[in-house]
Amino acid sequence: MSNATLTIDLNALAANWRALDRMTDVPTGAVVKADGYGLDAGRVGRALADAGARHFFVAAAEEGAILRRAIGEGPEISVFSGHMAGDAEIIRSARLTPLINSVDQLLLHVEMLAGHRFGIQLDSGMNRLGMEPSEWAAVRAIALAQEPTLIMSHLACADTPDHPMNAQQLATFRDMTEGVDVPRSLAATGGILLGPDYHFDLTRPGVGLYGGLPFAQATPVVSLDVPVIQVRDVAVGETVGYANAFVAKTPTKVATVAAGYADGLIRAMGGQASFRHAGQTLPALGRVSMDMITVDVTALEDVPDHLQLIGPEQTVDQVAEWAGTIGYEILTSLGGRYARVYLS
Amino acid sequence: MSNATLTIDLNALAANWRALDRMTDVPTGAVVKADGYGLDAGRVGRALADAGARHFFVAAAEEGAILRRAIGEGPEISVFSGHMAGDAEIIRSARLTPLINSVDQLLLHVEMLAGHRFGIQLDSGMNRLGMEPSEWAAVRAIALAQEPTLIMSHLACADTPDHPMNAQQLATFRDMTEGVDVPRSLAATGGILLGPDYHFDLTRPGVGLYGGLPFAQATPVVSLDVPVIQVRDVAVGETVGYANAFVAKTPTKVATVAAGYADGLIRAMGGQASFRHAGQTLPALGRVSMDMITVDVTALEDVPDHLQLIGPEQTVDQVAEWAGTIGYEILTSLGGRYARVYLS
Repeated sequence: MSNATLTIDLNALAANWRALDRMTDVPTGAVVKADGYGLDAGRVGRALADAGARHFFVAAAEEGAILRRAIGEGPEISVFSGHMAGDAEIIRSARLTPLINSVDQLLLHVEMLAGHRFGIQLDSGMNRLGMEPSEWAAVRAIALAQEPTLIMSHLACADTPDHPMNAQQLATFRDMTEGVDVPRSLAATGGILLGPDYHFDLTRPGVGLYGGLPFAQATPVVSLDVPVIQVRDVAVGETVGYANAFVAKTPTKVATVAAGYADGLIRAMGGQASFRHAGQTLPALGRVSMDMITVDVTALEDVPDHLQLIGPEQTVDQVAEWAGTIGYEILTSLGGRYARVYLS
Repeated sequence: MSNATLTIDLNALAANWRALDRMTDVPTGAVVKADGYGLDAGRVGRALADAGARHFFVAAAEEGAILRRAIGEGPEISVFSGHMAGDAEIIRSARLTPLINSVDQLLLHVEMLAGHRFGIQLDSGMNRLGMEPSEWAAVRAIALAQEPTLIMSHLACADTPDHPMNAQQLATFRDMTEGVDVPRSLAATGGILLGPDYHFDLTRPGVGLYGGLPFAQATPVVSLDVPVIQVRDVAVGETVGYANAFVAKTPTKVATVAAGYADGLIRAMGGQASFRHAGQTLPALGRVSMDMITVDVTALEDVPDHLQLIGPEQTVDQVAEWAGTIGYEILTSLGGRYARVYLS
């Protein structure tokens, strides 16, 4: 077996959903876009539906159709990118709820799928998705007459609790939705942690479900064990890997393990990352290759079949720090060559 | 359609293989590991077999089995990670040629699959894969008696033609294989460009086939067109995206496009990348999100349905430079949500 093993603990996922659900007095949805943050939207969706989630969110209509086949008819599936040209048939057949982002999308939706359910996404300041205040003011009466299922917006700085942008977006969202008798949602994982003012009628956690920051109390969901291809002794002055990036200053035992940047182990972590085995920290050496990483295993008397990169001792956020990014990107980059084991 | 369109020009791929083939007087193989550098090993493999390739290389036995189903019985498929524990049945049933990396692998192979074809990988100095000189000296006679199909090694610094490591590895490889009557291979794309001394009996280009450096004359193979979700006017002082990373200094027209780091558009390119349309360069603004990027389209009178990130005007290597990495990583990170169109 030259494939690494990615173990996904669906019990931990469900526990994270329940923990986030307990933090609010309102229903808790679940964001399963990007193939369930790289962990398989179908399996993740079924596990969360079993835990009690009744409202799912995806990025694109195509993702919604896949999710609908996996979780069946009960739960609502809302689409952040709304109703784009060419989406009508997927939205209709998979019973999706597009979150309308603009007047153009509203016109398209009414033209193509009059009477089909939809929500509204408002821009409260992030300037990425959703209707601008002026746009919303112009169509608000018409849109509300069509009875949207949800009005939502998204926070730009929720991971930084004391950022003034949070209160500013909250005030804007309240202004834009004042007197509206439609369920409202503002909070993803970070918004849940900001407290009750941000919870409104539905929360929609994403990264926290998968064990990532800013939900520091999350149970880790993912572990990654990478097989050792071979082990060699490298003498002082010898080099390891591309561009001779590592030069041995002392005699070094080097293991070559079978995963690399083509498996989502971002190349920028080269020289920063470590693996783990039996309580030992084992530094990666030199550059990350496409299919391999070289690891200093001098500390190990016997080199095992696998070394661990992600697990209870080092989370996706730790790996992200080595790569100069965020845990979200580590999760969504997890590659297609892993042997995937689901614990449930 | 909220999915971006990834167009893969199999004619350009075949043209690159033929161009690299013309640079040497020996047969030219093809490296199609990591799912054909992210472009679908089956389609890529069939196109290259049609062009004339008769020897393919993959990283793992599992990849070899997928490729065998795609290209049929004729071509040889060699596996860089060699014969690992648990691989015997795949190697046997898919008629793969493991490139044996160590004495342990040689013993395993002979024990599990006596008489089944194999090659030998030698370490000529990279210290990543292959037998060390001392290891090779110890088993050389026994290994050669089993009639390996190929003896190969890999260069650590071939992308830097004047690096002294190239000549050093060449000398080591010659020393280790002197008097051996087995076909030899040292050169991948970079090695082909180093000249005839490095060509031996078979070359095995990878990245050059897919349009990437160091093969500067390569024909681009990939283009990526990303749909526009919506467009908004952002006033002076307003912010865009996560962490308010962009602040408008002038009135700015902003398009939100539907691809992000979950699609392999590495987050580190945020603030560096540009899109293209109608000869205009359109800078990305703020951070790359999981499913979206915001783009300054002030220069466009009419905003089209799609903006181009990768294409003839900006290659995978240009995108890699923005992300602080190499074209190889851009290719192998291309994500699963794209609508893929193959030109052939």
